[in-house]
Amino acid sequence: MHMEPSKKLSLEPYKGTRDFYPEDQFIQNYIFSVWRKVAESYGYVEYNSSILEETDLYRAKSGEEIVNEQTYNFRDRGDRDVTIRPEMTPTVARMVARKRKELSFPLRWFSIPNLWRYERPQRGRLREHWQLNVDMFGVDSLAADVELISVGYDVMKAFGAPNDSFQIRVNSRKFLNFFADSYLGISPEQKHKIFKLIDKMHKMPAKEFEQAGAEILGDAFGKLEQVISMRDALSLPADLQDTDGVADILNVISSLRRKGITNAVFDPSLMRGFDYYTGVVFELYDANPANPRALSGGGRYDDLVGIFGVEKVPGAGFGMGDVTVADFLETHQLLPEYKATAKLYVCHTDGYIEQANQLATDLRKQGVNVASDLTDRKVAAQVKTADKQKIPFVVVVGEEETKSGTYQVKSLSDGTEHRAAIAQIADIIKD
Amino acid sequence: MHMEPSKKLSLEPYKGTRDFYPEDQFIQNYIFSVWRKVAESYGYVEYNSSILEETDLYRAKSGEEIVNEQTYNFRDRGDRDVTIRPEMTPTVARMVARKRKELSFPLRWFSIPNLWRYERPQRGRLREHWQLNVDMFGVDSLAADVELISVGYDVMKAFGAPNDSFQIRVNSRKFLNFFADSYLGISPEQKHKIFKLIDKMHKMPAKEFEQAGAEILGDAFGKLEQVISMRDALSLPADLQDTDGVADILNVISSLRRKGITNAVFDPSLMRGFDYYTGVVFELYDANPANPRALSGGGRYDDLVGIFGVEKVPGAGFGMGDVTVADFLETHQLLPEYKATAKLYVCHTDGYIEQANQLATDLRKQGVNVASDLTDRKVAAQVKTADKQKIPFVVVVGEEETKSGTYQVKSLSDGTEHRAAIAQIADIIKD
Repeated sequence: MHMEPSKKLSLEPYKGTRDFYPEDQFIQNYIFSVWRKVAESYGYVEYNSSILEETDLYRAKSGEEIVNEQTYNFRDRGDRDVTIRPEMTPTVARMVARKRKELSFPLRWFSIPNLWRYERPQRGRLREHWQLNVDMFGVDSLAADVELISVGYDVMKAFGAPNDSFQIRVNSRKFLNFFADSYLGISPEQKHKIFKLIDKMHKMPAKEFEQAGAEILGDAFGKLEQVISMRDALSLPADLQDTDGVADILNVISSLRRKGITNAVFDPSLMRGFDYYTGVVFELYDANPANPRALSGGGRYDDLVGIFGVEKVPGAGFGMGDVTVADFLETHQLLPEYKATAKLYVCHTDGYIEQANQLATDLRKQGVNVASDLTDRKVAAQVKTADKQKIPFVVVVGEEETKSGTYQVKSLSDGTEHRAAIAQIADIIKD
Repeated sequence: MHMEPSKKLSLEPYKGTRDFYPEDQFIQNYIFSVWRKVAESYGYVEYNSSILEETDLYRAKSGEEIVNEQTYNFRDRGDRDVTIRPEMTPTVARMVARKRKELSFPLRWFSIPNLWRYERPQRGRLREHWQLNVDMFGVDSLAADVELISVGYDVMKAFGAPNDSFQIRVNSRKFLNFFADSYLGISPEQKHKIFKLIDKMHKMPAKEFEQAGAEILGDAFGKLEQVISMRDALSLPADLQDTDGVADILNVISSLRRKGITNAVFDPSLMRGFDYYTGVVFELYDANPANPRALSGGGRYDDLVGIFGVEKVPGAGFGMGDVTVADFLETHQLLPEYKATAKLYVCHTDGYIEQANQLATDLRKQGVNVASDLTDRKVAAQVKTADKQKIPFVVVVGEEETKSGTYQVKSLSDGTEHRAAIAQIADIIKD
């Protein structure tokens, strides 16, 4: 019954993950509340599922690299191959397919799952992170793509992000496929390789990108480089410009502009890693050149629900991660100040702990969050705890207070004191 | 790039886990919100950590059976032995130990983690469940135990549970140890075995329990059976009654009674599975004899923080699971009715989708949650979507509405209609 550990137990959380102490969880809760508020303002409803899925789900469409190198896979005690979810889209597609006939489309769904990738932890990338996922099913028109980008934009505005602090980058898989297959005329193998390379180009030196690109494409690389450096669809060569993919991109950018969202640009180098995208893809990108990172990304995946053997359902969605958002908010000094949940800390002199607890109980019934000190320490030590824990008000219960039924409520932020009966305390604290 | 699955993809969630469709997540969110509200009313602050911990953390104190047979253990790509957390207490103890010197005690912390056990799924027990965890660190007196039980009690009351629908069972590890070591005088091996057996006695036929118990203890089993069937500490044999453990139990029960909590009883058969408990242990137990299950359970674990090699910190806490609570609420018809997040569904006639979207945007700015139908279906089909998704109001935007700037707002619950300009719509919907 008494097993002592054979070596000293680690105090650290598992590599690449975080302990959320109350001050950290406060930030998380703030981020989640903004996500939830904006998603709900558009009528999205929350869903969730298990963190474990059978590995086959990801083999199907997430992409080879993710399943083979970046996921947490293992075999359970019942010999099932399972994976801790690296992303939410396969799960939501599975859930939609599962109730394909009962659900009433179009669906607006959101979730805030934690997701896992096995990778070297670094700034902005951890092994476990939380992600807002917003998805619409049952609408195949660009109106859905435009709304989803607007939701992401509104989230950033709700965080207080200045307009010039991020950019919306828009591309299209239809455009990219036409560009590779018809315009460049490269082979499927070359296409696969060059797309993977472009997906990483902003994370490698330009020289390295050029060398690797030329190796894959030979002469065609020059033609590719010219196009992917453009940011204006109207300057594209005519035979590229006059395609469905480019029409979609222009439509999305102009629709956003009509809604007052003016920071969207065409970016032919925008890939998004997942294999399942079929149409428009987009990212919200940090405008700070020192921090070249996506804050959010998504796109259309019209074929994903169909892989489960049910009738196709068009889908589109995006994700936004807590780690990148928290970094962004910190950089732009947009993080809220920590607040304790208790508004009042009830201290007591020797022998008056039951009376102190009774006061706390009475105030709770009035809807006030109250913590009562349960130690037998001196009053000064009890007050110090309140101050360190950032609880804004204290009251001390002793002989005199118990007799008179009035209490001295002290603000720890400015030191002001108010004498009050129980009925008035809630009002004092609210001010 | 196009990998098709070799076999048909499963539509089901992983065995023993749940998909939370919006109606299910609505219930989860309700349960979480009640948990959070009550915990915060006592000044508890939220924390969290990673779902993966190094396996050593559980080897230390959770108990052999849990680590060897019931956890999700695996080796990560970097050869670390990791476990998906089966419970939260080892994590919170680790976190407290990690910042032992910076934290200001006493701490009141709560969390709502998801936890994993590898077991045969059955009613009330799934492989993944969520659990409210409420813990206090730095108070060694029974005042902490009493508060924690009160928090659990208040949670049940906040759910609307009738007083006679559950019972608070109180026991003490101090009592149990004295009972086994001194009163029965059994060996440590016998004690270990009989405690495990008692822990499961309410889940097995009485005959089976008696047979197994007699096998372990021989003649001493009769003495044990007599004591563990008692429910009044004052009827215990004098040499058992006059012990610290029983004094603690009586103190807790009478303190609760003074607070108006009258459904607490002594239960010498209450074990709680974990090896780390050191003092009072307790459960909130379903009073329905057809459903002999704990809704919540916890206790004192004064030695747990110390196993990390830092100075000891007294601790006590409890957990309450979402699966058992949801079953309980369903049985007692206490579940809330589903509400969509959108209050209004904006439909449009052909060609007026942009105007419909504009109305939705304007209303969102007034703080109303609005979904706009983005399909090109007939109006009747759009309205039907709102009805099926339980969105309470609809409005149709067409030529006339766009010209007049007034809209017909229809309630789908009672069919009433109100003609209104944009400025009035929010008020109509609130009513």
